[in-house]
Amino acid sequence: MTAPSTLKDRIQNADLLARVVPVEEAVKHVTDGNTVAISGFTKSGEPKTFFPALAFHLSRTAPQTRLTLLSGASLSEDVEGPMAPFIRKRGPYMSSSASRRRIHAGEMDFTDVHLSAFARNLMYGFYGDIDVAVVEVSRIRPNGSVILTSSVGISAEALAKAKKIILEVNTSAPDYTGFHDIVVPTVHPHVGWPLPLLNVRDRIGTPYVEFDLGKVVAVVESRTPDHPVPFKAADETDKRIARNVVDFLLSCREEFGWGKRLPPIQSGVGNVANAIIGELYESPFQKIRFWTEVFQDGMLRYVEDDAKFEYASATAVSFSAEGRQRFQQLFERCKERLVLRPMWLSNSPEIISRLFVIAMNTPIEVDIYGHVNSTHIDGSRIVNGLGGSGDFFRNAYLSIVHTPSVRKLKDGRTVSCVMPYVRHIDHTEHDIKCVVTEHGYARNMDIRSPRRRATDIIDNCAHPYFRPLLHAYLDMAGPGDEPRATDMKVLEAWWRDYDAACRAFPQGG
Amino acid sequence: MTAPSTLKDRIQNADLLARVVPVEEAVKHVTDGNTVAISGFTKSGEPKTFFPALAFHLSRTAPQTRLTLLSGASLSEDVEGPMAPFIRKRGPYMSSSASRRRIHAGEMDFTDVHLSAFARNLMYGFYGDIDVAVVEVSRIRPNGSVILTSSVGISAEALAKAKKIILEVNTSAPDYTGFHDIVVPTVHPHVGWPLPLLNVRDRIGTPYVEFDLGKVVAVVESRTPDHPVPFKAADETDKRIARNVVDFLLSCREEFGWGKRLPPIQSGVGNVANAIIGELYESPFQKIRFWTEVFQDGMLRYVEDDAKFEYASATAVSFSAEGRQRFQQLFERCKERLVLRPMWLSNSPEIISRLFVIAMNTPIEVDIYGHVNSTHIDGSRIVNGLGGSGDFFRNAYLSIVHTPSVRKLKDGRTVSCVMPYVRHIDHTEHDIKCVVTEHGYARNMDIRSPRRRATDIIDNCAHPYFRPLLHAYLDMAGPGDEPRATDMKVLEAWWRDYDAACRAFPQGG
Repeated sequence: MTAPSTLKDRIQNADLLARVVPVEEAVKHVTDGNTVAISGFTKSGEPKTFFPALAFHLSRTAPQTRLTLLSGASLSEDVEGPMAPFIRKRGPYMSSSASRRRIHAGEMDFTDVHLSAFARNLMYGFYGDIDVAVVEVSRIRPNGSVILTSSVGISAEALAKAKKIILEVNTSAPDYTGFHDIVVPTVHPHVGWPLPLLNVRDRIGTPYVEFDLGKVVAVVESRTPDHPVPFKAADETDKRIARNVVDFLLSCREEFGWGKRLPPIQSGVGNVANAIIGELYESPFQKIRFWTEVFQDGMLRYVEDDAKFEYASATAVSFSAEGRQRFQQLFERCKERLVLRPMWLSNSPEIISRLFVIAMNTPIEVDIYGHVNSTHIDGSRIVNGLGGSGDFFRNAYLSIVHTPSVRKLKDGRTVSCVMPYVRHIDHTEHDIKCVVTEHGYARNMDIRSPRRRATDIIDNCAHPYFRPLLHAYLDMAGPGDEPRATDMKVLEAWWRDYDAACRAFPQGG
Repeated sequence: MTAPSTLKDRIQNADLLARVVPVEEAVKHVTDGNTVAISGFTKSGEPKTFFPALAFHLSRTAPQTRLTLLSGASLSEDVEGPMAPFIRKRGPYMSSSASRRRIHAGEMDFTDVHLSAFARNLMYGFYGDIDVAVVEVSRIRPNGSVILTSSVGISAEALAKAKKIILEVNTSAPDYTGFHDIVVPTVHPHVGWPLPLLNVRDRIGTPYVEFDLGKVVAVVESRTPDHPVPFKAADETDKRIARNVVDFLLSCREEFGWGKRLPPIQSGVGNVANAIIGELYESPFQKIRFWTEVFQDGMLRYVEDDAKFEYASATAVSFSAEGRQRFQQLFERCKERLVLRPMWLSNSPEIISRLFVIAMNTPIEVDIYGHVNSTHIDGSRIVNGLGGSGDFFRNAYLSIVHTPSVRKLKDGRTVSCVMPYVRHIDHTEHDIKCVVTEHGYARNMDIRSPRRRATDIIDNCAHPYFRPLLHAYLDMAGPGDEPRATDMKVLEAWWRDYDAACRAFPQGG
């Protein structure tokens, strides 16, 4: 890697170098009512200098300003938090507590869309015009095309679609030249084309983003590195879930004749995901490939092991402080084994299906039939959004939903993550092939009615403490192939018993 | 067309001609515990002679026999009804009242899977071995490969995968040579390939199915034509829904710059679907293309109009008695303008997405946020299955769910098809771009929270009689971006009011 650099090193186009302005000037291009599309995905590659400066500017000069903010996926709280009061509409994913509060209160309109669809809808014009794009880049090439940084997300679509462009050149970021594979979606009535991608490592686009330079109204410098993401070591429950996931995969290897060739893995983000990545490393599988959204801490050890690892494709790298150091040491090696693509491509149903990807994600809760709530607490209040979980679950060769069987809430109750029904459904029983908890796994791949699957999910996945209550629901719910209790009095009694059980959950249970 | 023919005309391979046996002999190849995969899709191309004969044979000689039955989609009651007592497991779609009763009672295990996924899972081995394939064909070519009849469904996969094959040569069917485009899915660890299909009319496979002739244990003759599907003329409500759908499409044409080029249309089956096909015919759109599951009565008039119509792709033709006559008259013309493909291809997410297909389907009910119940009455009892609705809704350019705003039940109540929540969700709010009833349409394409979309759906789509009740639910449901009432007492009161309203629905309202 080659950081730190000067602005002159990084801006090799004289015309654009002449458009460098202080960030306090650049922010004036964003005005009330604008739709702003920015770079950033899981806190990586976001405009870390421009956005806080814009919030400061608006709070002093135009506090009534309201914007529409579109990003790849989540931004860091440092970037989104100060801007939240000025955002009227937001999509397609966020993990900012400031935005969340406003969304729950009805002050910010949030749309929850599959990430692959979002990027395409943006190009189709479903979200109207994009007034301003703000995109972090690591280098501007002599012809004015740009090299992005640690994420791709919707950066290419934002640059293609926006009326005005602001580039944030991050001189503290390494020069990411060679990491990216950029293609933008075709728009009807143009003819769509087959994505000529047959392997995780195939590249089908350009390593840079080209766009209309005439639209660049400002270039600003940033020296702020990506904000690190928290990393918590796997606990015993995480490890047991991971072991059950790998057991399931080993049984499939046997049954479906994979040989040593594990299909490419999509992994969510978080402790369980990292535990699974760790457990896979210890498994007999070789030449592992990741086709996923985010390349993260747990994957770094793979990069050094040619027997264990073949290649990874993602739309962002996202690390803890420690992980970033390790990434910087492995920068050149990573470049040979990792490609970053636009999120419509990393999450493309066409590719996920063709490559036989194995998808894994953690939900809020799952029901006894395999329906999954990924987004809404009590069915009413969004947490972050569904992100790419639907892109992957729906199109994967195998879709695995993994969760601890119980979760301890702040109010002291311990709730079951396996429920008779979930109050918000983001992924249906039709899309889930396996449910995994620390207690075991339940397959949902055979010719079986939901009623019979339910018994499996309860007996193999639910916490033993909650199993009698779940069976009680099933017993009273009939008739039908997917029985559901509809008598409100009966339901009320069940929920009363359940709440009491949550309160009485044994300590250390 | 060239029917009727003799068996000798239709079996041009001497080896297979020698394997012709009476159907009473052929049925003996199916024995207890077998998995049987058969041709047939929406009552077209099913083994109409073999299956009733098998039911007769089993009822006399081995009534304890239990089988697993896999088909493309629905079979006619004449074919499935007599077999229902012998079916232990069934997938992926049915519309037989005999099977439905057994499924609800827990006597038949039914699995409800996206049709595109089902055909691929079959090839992947997720449903185990296929013991016997029974496939209707219109001709056996000199080299033993076969020409299918009025549907493709899973016929090619069944022939590829089965241990034993029984061919039912239908001499009453026309010779369908030239209608089909056959490809089977790739199985991991083989490399998946991009489907080289850019236009509705492109053909990427063979017009015949090739398979291992050594597996053919019997060839039988059938003289039974496809059982006609009922056809009911559109009523005033259907026509108003159709007009609203076309209004929505016209507004999109304007907004998203389609010009005269309407994206290809997927249309469900039934009265509303036929009304929409009729309304589109009267619309300003030209050179209409259908990318759909079933080519049906309403599309026949298109075939004669070169200005109005370009091409259709489906996995089956399915007609009323009258429609079939017309189809037979137009047989050669249809062959030039219609292609029948395997259902994994007609319902392929890759192609639906690439071609910018506009998807339309009728649900059982939809909720105020756009979640759709396509399968389960009261959330508990399956009607037919989700079929291809998820394949299309999830991957379409625009997904339109259309339904009458109310439905009169046999018990005299009139229920709302727009509900505060639905008790079974097959398609989520994330996948629906527009809800349409006879009262209007509500777009779900912008950056908006579900709470605000709900108001639109209630005010534009719900029946005016039920709107106050739906607003009442929304008012009591907060807080949150997608408010949901969780207090059982409150919910009980709402359902009581709702039930009373259903009973008091004004006659002729």
